[in-house]
Amino acid sequence: MFHHSSKLQYEVRVDTPDPQFAKYLQQAIGGVEGEIRVAMQYFFQAMGARGDAKYRDMLMMTATEELSHIEFLGHAVALNLEGAPVSVQEEAAKDPVVHAIMGGANPRHILSSGLSAMPVNANGVPFDMSHVYATGNLAADMMANATAESGGRVLASRLYNMTEDAGMKDMLSFLIARDTMHQQQWLAVIEELGGWNQQLPIPNSTPEDHEAMEHSYYFLNTSLDEPTPEGRWTSGSSLDGRAEFSVKEKVEPMGQKPDLGKARPGSGTQTEQQ
Amino acid sequence: MFHHSSKLQYEVRVDTPDPQFAKYLQQAIGGVEGEIRVAMQYFFQAMGARGDAKYRDMLMMTATEELSHIEFLGHAVALNLEGAPVSVQEEAAKDPVVHAIMGGANPRHILSSGLSAMPVNANGVPFDMSHVYATGNLAADMMANATAESGGRVLASRLYNMTEDAGMKDMLSFLIARDTMHQQQWLAVIEELGGWNQQLPIPNSTPEDHEAMEHSYYFLNTSLDEPTPEGRWTSGSSLDGRAEFSVKEKVEPMGQKPDLGKARPGSGTQTEQQ
Amino acid sequence: MFHHSSKLQYEVRVDTPDPQFAKYLQQAIGGVEGEIRVAMQYFFQAMGARGDAKYRDMLMMTATEELSHIEFLGHAVALNLEGAPVSVQEEAAKDPVVHAIMGGANPRHILSSGLSAMPVNANGVPFDMSHVYATGNLAADMMANATAESGGRVLASRLYNMTEDAGMKDMLSFLIARDTMHQQQWLAVIEELGGWNQQLPIPNSTPEDHEAMEHSYYFLNTSLDEPTPEGRWTSGSSLDGRAEFSVKEKVEPMGQKPDLGKARPGSGTQTEQQ
Amino acid sequence: MFHHSSKLQYEVRVDTPDPQFAKYLQQAIGGVEGEIRVAMQYFFQAMGARGDAKYRDMLMMTATEELSHIEFLGHAVALNLEGAPVSVQEEAAKDPVVHAIMGGANPRHILSSGLSAMPVNANGVPFDMSHVYATGNLAADMMANATAESGGRVLASRLYNMTEDAGMKDMLSFLIARDTMHQQQWLAVIEELGGWNQQLPIPNSTPEDHEAMEHSYYFLNTSLDEPTPEGRWTSGSSLDGRAEFSVKEKVEPMGQKPDLGKARPGSGTQTEQQ
Amino acid sequence: MFHHSSKLQYEVRVDTPDPQFAKYLQQAIGGVEGEIRVAMQYFFQAMGARGDAKYRDMLMMTATEELSHIEFLGHAVALNLEGAPVSVQEEAAKDPVVHAIMGGANPRHILSSGLSAMPVNANGVPFDMSHVYATGNLAADMMANATAESGGRVLASRLYNMTEDAGMKDMLSFLIARDTMHQQQWLAVIEELGGWNQQLPIPNSTPEDHEAMEHSYYFLNTSLDEPTPEGRWTSGSSLDGRAEFSVKEKVEPMGQKPDLGKARPGSGTQTEQQ
Amino acid sequence: MFHHSSKLQYEVRVDTPDPQFAKYLQQAIGGVEGEIRVAMQYFFQAMGARGDAKYRDMLMMTATEELSHIEFLGHAVALNLEGAPVSVQEEAAKDPVVHAIMGGANPRHILSSGLSAMPVNANGVPFDMSHVYATGNLAADMMANATAESGGRVLASRLYNMTEDAGMKDMLSFLIARDTMHQQQWLAVIEELGGWNQQLPIPNSTPEDHEAMEHSYYFLNTSLDEPTPEGRWTSGSSLDGRAEFSVKEKVEPMGQKPDLGKARPGSGTQTEQQ
Repeated sequence: MFHHSSKLQYEVRVDTPDPQFAKYLQQAIGGVEGEIRVAMQYFFQAMGARGDAKYRDMLMMTATEELSHIEFLGHAVALNLEGAPVSVQEEAAKDPVVHAIMGGANPRHILSSGLSAMPVNANGVPFDMSHVYATGNLAADMMANATAESGGRVLASRLYNMTEDAGMKDMLSFLIARDTMHQQQWLAVIEELGGWNQQLPIPNSTPEDHEAMEHSYYFLNTSLDEPTPEGRWTSGSSLDGRAEFSVKEKVEPMGQKPDLGKARPGSGTQTEQQ
Repeated sequence: MFHHSSKLQYEVRVDTPDPQFAKYLQQAIGGVEGEIRVAMQYFFQAMGARGDAKYRDMLMMTATEELSHIEFLGHAVALNLEGAPVSVQEEAAKDPVVHAIMGGANPRHILSSGLSAMPVNANGVPFDMSHVYATGNLAADMMANATAESGGRVLASRLYNMTEDAGMKDMLSFLIARDTMHQQQWLAVIEELGGWNQQLPIPNSTPEDHEAMEHSYYFLNTSLDEPTPEGRWTSGSSLDGRAEFSVKEKVEPMGQKPDLGKARPGSGTQTEQQ
Repeated sequence: MFHHSSKLQYEVRVDTPDPQFAKYLQQAIGGVEGEIRVAMQYFFQAMGARGDAKYRDMLMMTATEELSHIEFLGHAVALNLEGAPVSVQEEAAKDPVVHAIMGGANPRHILSSGLSAMPVNANGVPFDMSHVYATGNLAADMMANATAESGGRVLASRLYNMTEDAGMKDMLSFLIARDTMHQQQWLAVIEELGGWNQQLPIPNSTPEDHEAMEHSYYFLNTSLDEPTPEGRWTSGSSLDGRAEFSVKEKVEPMGQKPDLGKARPGSGTQTEQQ
Repeated sequence: MFHHSSKLQYEVRVDTPDPQFAKYLQQAIGGVEGEIRVAMQYFFQAMGARGDAKYRDMLMMTATEELSHIEFLGHAVALNLEGAPVSVQEEAAKDPVVHAIMGGANPRHILSSGLSAMPVNANGVPFDMSHVYATGNLAADMMANATAESGGRVLASRLYNMTEDAGMKDMLSFLIARDTMHQQQWLAVIEELGGWNQQLPIPNSTPEDHEAMEHSYYFLNTSLDEPTPEGRWTSGSSLDGRAEFSVKEKVEPMGQKPDLGKARPGSGTQTEQQ
Repeated sequence: MFHHSSKLQYEVRVDTPDPQFAKYLQQAIGGVEGEIRVAMQYFFQAMGARGDAKYRDMLMMTATEELSHIEFLGHAVALNLEGAPVSVQEEAAKDPVVHAIMGGANPRHILSSGLSAMPVNANGVPFDMSHVYATGNLAADMMANATAESGGRVLASRLYNMTEDAGMKDMLSFLIARDTMHQQQWLAVIEELGGWNQQLPIPNSTPEDHEAMEHSYYFLNTSLDEPTPEGRWTSGSSLDGRAEFSVKEKVEPMGQKPDLGKARPGSGTQTEQQ
Repeated sequence: MFHHSSKLQYEVRVDTPDPQFAKYLQQAIGGVEGEIRVAMQYFFQAMGARGDAKYRDMLMMTATEELSHIEFLGHAVALNLEGAPVSVQEEAAKDPVVHAIMGGANPRHILSSGLSAMPVNANGVPFDMSHVYATGNLAADMMANATAESGGRVLASRLYNMTEDAGMKDMLSFLIARDTMHQQQWLAVIEELGGWNQQLPIPNSTPEDHEAMEHSYYFLNTSLDEPTPEGRWTSGSSLDGRAEFSVKEKVEPMGQKPDLGKARPGSGTQTEQQ
């Protein structure tokens, strides 16, 4: 069960409101790299967690933290929209600088939300929940989470560079910090469970006779004119320790030429196909 | 530039066509765990790759392989739909077993595609390209790819369990194998670049003074009644080697209570808010 | 800032797991009538609330409650999926009753989520955040909320009728009850602010000279052969007390016949249009 | 059956074409507050209406009116795009003012539609029909409609403020007026059916023994540090007259701590979860 | 401006209600081959039509007809849902045949719409307006329309085969007939404007010096092992009469190997990429 | 099976990088008129092709070519983003011209993709695969393809006009040329199969007794005040040669007034509807 306290997890200060930066910040709320995504992803993973209960608890605790991130980012968007013109008669609207900025702002911040945050990204595209990745497989979920936090920290770092507002930089430095922790906490689960060697391949419960092992450890060069890019993945022991990596350069199709034959009468095709 | 050869990368054989399994297979084509996603994800990452060109080549080669996976899966869907009734007058439609199966089939396999594959998932929801994760950050992209392959191998393993058709099992065992390789090849890039210790936090180029480091290494327990789940993430050296993990149990909000004050005249609010 | 306690807001008991009912329950999680929607809607409205702070507090408190509803519904879905076959070799899968039910189940509950809840509706369509209605106008938002709770209680009542499971009926009776309260609490805000007479038309701050008042109070009969349906809306004082309702039966267009003339050279049209 | 006459319902005049305002106007066509939504919502409600036929007629008549609103708004968009540059060689494109405006315009108005309206919102996001709310429950539908018209009038009022064009202001004043009427006509149905007292809770046909009445009338304070916001919803008779409102401040979870136990073999999880 | 008359354009009769067929019929309402699509497509094309006004009139007249098709199909869905069980206690729900059918029905027809039509397809996916194709180019739009009507008639033919209900067959035979006409009426515009020879390439107003004509008339064989499929497109005069078709078999890339070099500092990439 | 060679199909040169044009170019990648769409459409049509195998081969060959178009367009986007400011401290960001341009750029090109192409359109809306039209009917598919290429060439022509960059103009002239060929190659299939006379109506395999032929050849004038627009579609032989076109001016509904009667108890409606 959830509870709320009235103060924000972190202080939000905007020294110079900037409606264009409000649009940019939306990516951190409703973008695929944003906080709605991680909050909901950890929440749904927690609800589906099977096995050692501590991972469930960990997921729910961090889901709860991410909800608090949405909250202070939402406040940051609203503060950046303070003073944005709501009428072309306003002084602000006549200021050429403001006018130019408004061309790059999200018009729905004025038209639809009344100068506050929306669950959309920096293009105004609403977040859709298909981005909540939760497979029920603990390792797959941990990787999905570390991935989400990587995208999140890349985004926060870019946002940091795109503003000169000291308040916003301070808030973003907090987000950058928390993303640092969250990246590592999910990867730490992998390490605790024996590391990649033991967790790979995911799922590690798939019986070996369900797998065509002769195809499991070669890098396939599908290029007609490029040499194989050599690296850790082309030779040496596989990361799961089950085999040696190799390369398959001369790619010959192993399958048939597909042929579906003629169409059946009654199937809505042209007569010439039947 | 792309080229094509006429045979499938892997042989596709369906011993007993099953329209309901055709619906299930769609998840491997147009689901978020599916082949359109990885093909396009690696393709877009390759197009945006900066730095050592070998990663670009590697991405494009595997993108190309994934296109071939779409192709043989598409053929598998069509073969599973062979014999599905296209008319209620057909013998098949009158067979109670077929009738029951059709209730669980995707009706658009008959109504829209004419007994062939579609770029949709097992619920008939079309794939949307927002799932193509490509950040321009090599490590974030590698993690996104390993995640996608983990979800893919989980899916292929589950599909393997949901069919008794020997041909389908054989094809899925090939997919399981290739996903094994692909999971590892992307993680091998991380290892080659010095491992997590060097690659974390992502992006590792963010200057330390952009980060509120005092918040970077504690696990935040947001629960009111649960003890902190102890583990690799609560003590010991952080995975990036920059600090020690700790725990913050007593969560006190650091920010203000938000207050946006009154609404402005002309902003489309109720008079009572102004 | 959000916090969590480990127990569910309400007890969830499933006497007879039913994968098809799990699919149905998804509508209450990820449907437009569902709990993700109201949780996020109240949350975003709270973040954008201007005017008397008590409405902001009220919104945030109920947003928090709705997050708890997602949580126990998610558990209900998982419990309904216990025992669903994950392999065609399983005993359950060979039971004709289970087999028939699985035809009507959501295949992604097996293939994608591993027997747990997803943020999708009963058709497997992911929730998208464009359904979070938050205008910044208090009265418009209150109506949107009462509407959402009406749809929610209609859904919960229908779900109640579609199960014979005592545990599920008990849980749904709680949801029905809370929706009763939530419908009324949002409408009570309207009443407290002076009732419809004072709150209409929304926004009540639009100056009268922005409105073509001669068109504000007639019901327009656009039918060629039906008499005007008489009712409270065709005569008597308007609900805002500003005028009398009337009817306009003989509909004459007031505007011009549209004509955009010829296309410009260089505009990508056919030569014949230019 | 539908019919058409060649003139617009209301005259559309644009004194000074403005491609940026064309983008803004799109919200009134293809936004969730827009005319496609209400036209389709009333249409589908009419098609599903059961009970007294006059509500069906009323819905269909107003659906038909809304189609006419789409039509004149579409013309307004096209007129605002007259003169927008279709080539960087044009005089207009070299005008710095036009150049600045085009940065804030919808590029697809030039690239995709050839200077005319599209069924998208002000961010260029296409309208999707999941926003057509039609439950089959008359009261729920009436509220959804009054909500839609409230959002619509808020939007029209904001658009009115964002233009100085006399023609556009005139057209918007007509929309504002019709939204006034439509808000009231749907609420008048509630009044005619006995008012909120009789219509609540929605659906009012749910038997009382389907509802855990002891949870139906308290406001739940989920905050850890805020007092309950007192108001009409915390004491006094409930709006449906069935009970007294109360407050529940000390929130104790009533349910269990969720526990799904171990994962089953064959379910695609990690071995460690089984 | 639109008007409505109370009767349906065509009579709808359902002899044996079938909830599963109701789901199938949804494809003809809210599918990409369905009536919402064509109604809105012709409507938006009409609103953007430039050049000879008769095409605008033609588009608007047929848009209006398609609205009437939505209407009778919506009624057909509702009639097919008559008698579907709304409670598991109902007699119908206990009938094994009905039970089996309900597994293949759209659960939202019971849970969300209350036994009536929805603006969704046969998978329950809502129609989205991005499928409204309207380019402002007359010939491109005519082709899009003939395409839509082809998909529509294919669908109607398949639906005809999937029912034994005489009333439904009668209604579908009307749809098949109208689609016959509509396919031809849009293609007749091409013929009237001089035929393909004059209308191709679309847009026919693109100056020849904007086109790399040396690449305009060869079929490109991108296969490594298949001979060129010979046909009307490999030799003979081009359909626009400007050149002869030819074949390019030996495909050599004409461009460079892409290389974006190193990433810039501050761009959120890994240090190793910079 | 697919293969790749390292060079682009066509050379890409950007003389003056322009982030706003990068946004425009996205329409040609991820728009409905773009290359992802045609690549995937031809690919899925090929996978479902039944009948003469040469059409399957042709589809797959051109699908492969379109993948190469995505590739060089993706490179063009990246090159147009070279030099775009990734930080407000950069020189470029302080240049007023660049500043103004950035207002019209896609912010996600900086925030999300790190200065490279994304699978989105010019509004930043991700491509969704519902636009992959593949019916299994050869003629319907050919028309869909010619339509897609028409939209594509309209778009490329408009883009050509919106840039002054010689490199971009050169690349677009190549796209314009290939679209010329592709339009014709799909239409040539229709011609080869006997032309419209033989291919219409689509599907031409629908038995005549499935069609209400008395409704198949009249143009329906649904206007109350406009004369029928006369043309090739109102008189003369139908394009399929089966009948004469005619006009139906006086439109009388042929169906009933719909009436669904009362709602059933237990269906979640208001009591007043039952």
